[in-house]
Amino acid sequence: MRDVAVLGVGMTPFGRHAGKSCVELFAEAAMDAIVESNITTQDVEALILANCLGEFTGGQMVMAGMAAGELALRPSTPAIRVENACASGSTAIYTGFLMVASGMKDLVLVGGVERALAMDTPMATRTFAMGSDGRYEFYSGVTFPGVFAMLTRLYSQKYGIPLKKLKEQMAMVAVKNHKNAVPNERAQFRKEITIDTVLKSFMVSDPLQLFDCCPFSDGAAAIVLAPMDIAKKYVDKPVRIGGIGMGSNRALIHQKDFTIMKARQESSKAAYTMAGISPKDVDVVELHDCFTIAEIVATEMLGFFKPGEGAEAVEKGETSMSGSIPVNPSGGLKAKGHPIGATGVAQAFEVVNQLRGKCGERQVKDAKIGLTDTLGGDICAVVNTVFIID
Amino acid sequence: MRDVAVLGVGMTPFGRHAGKSCVELFAEAAMDAIVESNITTQDVEALILANCLGEFTGGQMVMAGMAAGELALRPSTPAIRVENACASGSTAIYTGFLMVASGMKDLVLVGGVERALAMDTPMATRTFAMGSDGRYEFYSGVTFPGVFAMLTRLYSQKYGIPLKKLKEQMAMVAVKNHKNAVPNERAQFRKEITIDTVLKSFMVSDPLQLFDCCPFSDGAAAIVLAPMDIAKKYVDKPVRIGGIGMGSNRALIHQKDFTIMKARQESSKAAYTMAGISPKDVDVVELHDCFTIAEIVATEMLGFFKPGEGAEAVEKGETSMSGSIPVNPSGGLKAKGHPIGATGVAQAFEVVNQLRGKCGERQVKDAKIGLTDTLGGDICAVVNTVFIID
Repeated sequence: MRDVAVLGVGMTPFGRHAGKSCVELFAEAAMDAIVESNITTQDVEALILANCLGEFTGGQMVMAGMAAGELALRPSTPAIRVENACASGSTAIYTGFLMVASGMKDLVLVGGVERALAMDTPMATRTFAMGSDGRYEFYSGVTFPGVFAMLTRLYSQKYGIPLKKLKEQMAMVAVKNHKNAVPNERAQFRKEITIDTVLKSFMVSDPLQLFDCCPFSDGAAAIVLAPMDIAKKYVDKPVRIGGIGMGSNRALIHQKDFTIMKARQESSKAAYTMAGISPKDVDVVELHDCFTIAEIVATEMLGFFKPGEGAEAVEKGETSMSGSIPVNPSGGLKAKGHPIGATGVAQAFEVVNQLRGKCGERQVKDAKIGLTDTLGGDICAVVNTVFIID
Repeated sequence: MRDVAVLGVGMTPFGRHAGKSCVELFAEAAMDAIVESNITTQDVEALILANCLGEFTGGQMVMAGMAAGELALRPSTPAIRVENACASGSTAIYTGFLMVASGMKDLVLVGGVERALAMDTPMATRTFAMGSDGRYEFYSGVTFPGVFAMLTRLYSQKYGIPLKKLKEQMAMVAVKNHKNAVPNERAQFRKEITIDTVLKSFMVSDPLQLFDCCPFSDGAAAIVLAPMDIAKKYVDKPVRIGGIGMGSNRALIHQKDFTIMKARQESSKAAYTMAGISPKDVDVVELHDCFTIAEIVATEMLGFFKPGEGAEAVEKGETSMSGSIPVNPSGGLKAKGHPIGATGVAQAFEVVNQLRGKCGERQVKDAKIGLTDTLGGDICAVVNTVFIID
């Protein structure tokens, strides 16, 4: 396999983008990535685009081809849409990685886009629930807040952490991520909150309250990939994809204990092994905090803390900007926002900028190795990517 | 890039599959492919699954992960869903090809599935129209029968073929494909028709009549890919993917003359070049006859006939089983059926079986090189694959 590197990255602000189609929104992020890569649209040799809900929000199927047309890419350009629920964006990166690593194409545009605020919330919750098992879970009324509420109770019980205590630790995740997002000009929420804000917010799915949950968002992100030797000709600081892994799992209903997510352990192991590193070598991580409990469990599955110790680590500040492993400096899904198809690519946007030292007030000092982690559906798809600046 | 080969193939009958979810339907085809490959589900290292309408027909997003779970694949297995409208299945093959060619994984399961009969026809036509441009085309009432009706009139005018004459030649495409499907036990329609059947059928979108159009179908297909050296250990006659190409185009509304499909010319050229062959070397082709006119134009864009000469070639029998280039021996989309996400993989199923000499009554004699061709959306995505038996 050829070494694969990131050239330029682009990202729209996350939040509400009324009056723009997904194709238009993606084109904005794509042009930023293309310009930063010092290439033109005519140099792009393939497009991988992640999107989940385009049929519902804009009546648009085959969105990759439509986006290739919008950008006026050449007719010889393969355009592929991928969908893996919330892990769609990072699945696009995985696919783009294959395109470059194989030698099939050199300059590959990878992106993700979603308009999730375009839907009313009740409709969105119903639509998002299609990420769970359509036969057994969705059917019986399971939504994602419900899934992670159950996970919270299981975690509390299994590790003997009183729910009241655990909820405070979870609230600290929200407080941290909102604080991180304040200097992020692309974040959806840029206002600090307190533990009280979380604990006094309305109940969504007991014990998860509003501020335990990430928002619905519109937004897009894009990156350009190329073989390392070619990347060096275009940009000064190509960021190498040192390792990448994916895993898949049976739907939750088939799992005995979903505090342990086997697919995520396998996926991150694959990424670490390919990169020749271990969790302790990671300087910064952007991970899938769709709910506060999700961040805690993620830090355990990725090997930063032992199972059952992630909640306490938050309390100790280990995951804060100055901690042993800064988690979600961008604000994460929680505060930066979560436009589903764009999320994985936006994580890469942040990590690449962190490794290039371009993050200003939210810069993690001396970051050389970064990790992204995205979860799709009810833990049935996971992607992990290790980015390294040499 | 490593040489990529097909091990086993599987396919459900196409037609109506009431009471089965897409995941279950795919699992049937997948198990056939896995068994024919002399491997087990535990040997599968990655899954690429094509599906278009799973959210609409079964409330199922992230279907690849769900299918991986249904087959009880290992948690370390990447599972990726791709969607490129009617070209989804062949896009899955392209992606699976990258997975193997790159060296990322060895034994890769690729499949496609759709339940399109699950929807009533009016709803289906509306849903399928999402494959056109959501902003300009769909919005103004353009459906696919409308697109190909316009193409028919343009073709007639541009090449000076009277519409009455052209319609008879188009009817011959339908007659041929229905005849080819008679011995195909997996085909949706296995009854011969006459030119009169076509010309007396009801008008769908003038000048296209019912028998100019492919049906709505449920069905699934699957193939297993591996590097050639590994494939040889599992099966006697691995079929090599000699070349593969993809192209993309702006939506129809932006094209001046869509009798010439630039993306398809580029895509097939890429496949031929990689395989080191020219159109005249192809022994058998499965191509995208979503409408009778579509088959005619496809044979021109793939280089078998000059633009404007495809209709006459049908009349001369050049595309029949005994002609210079047998087209759609399976019956094609027209008679075998068109379960959207499965179609590209089903084309591969047919071509692989043709090259292995397993097609009985519909066997193309001494077929050594086969081509597949799939079109997605309003000509905005194309995939071509050259299969070779060495």
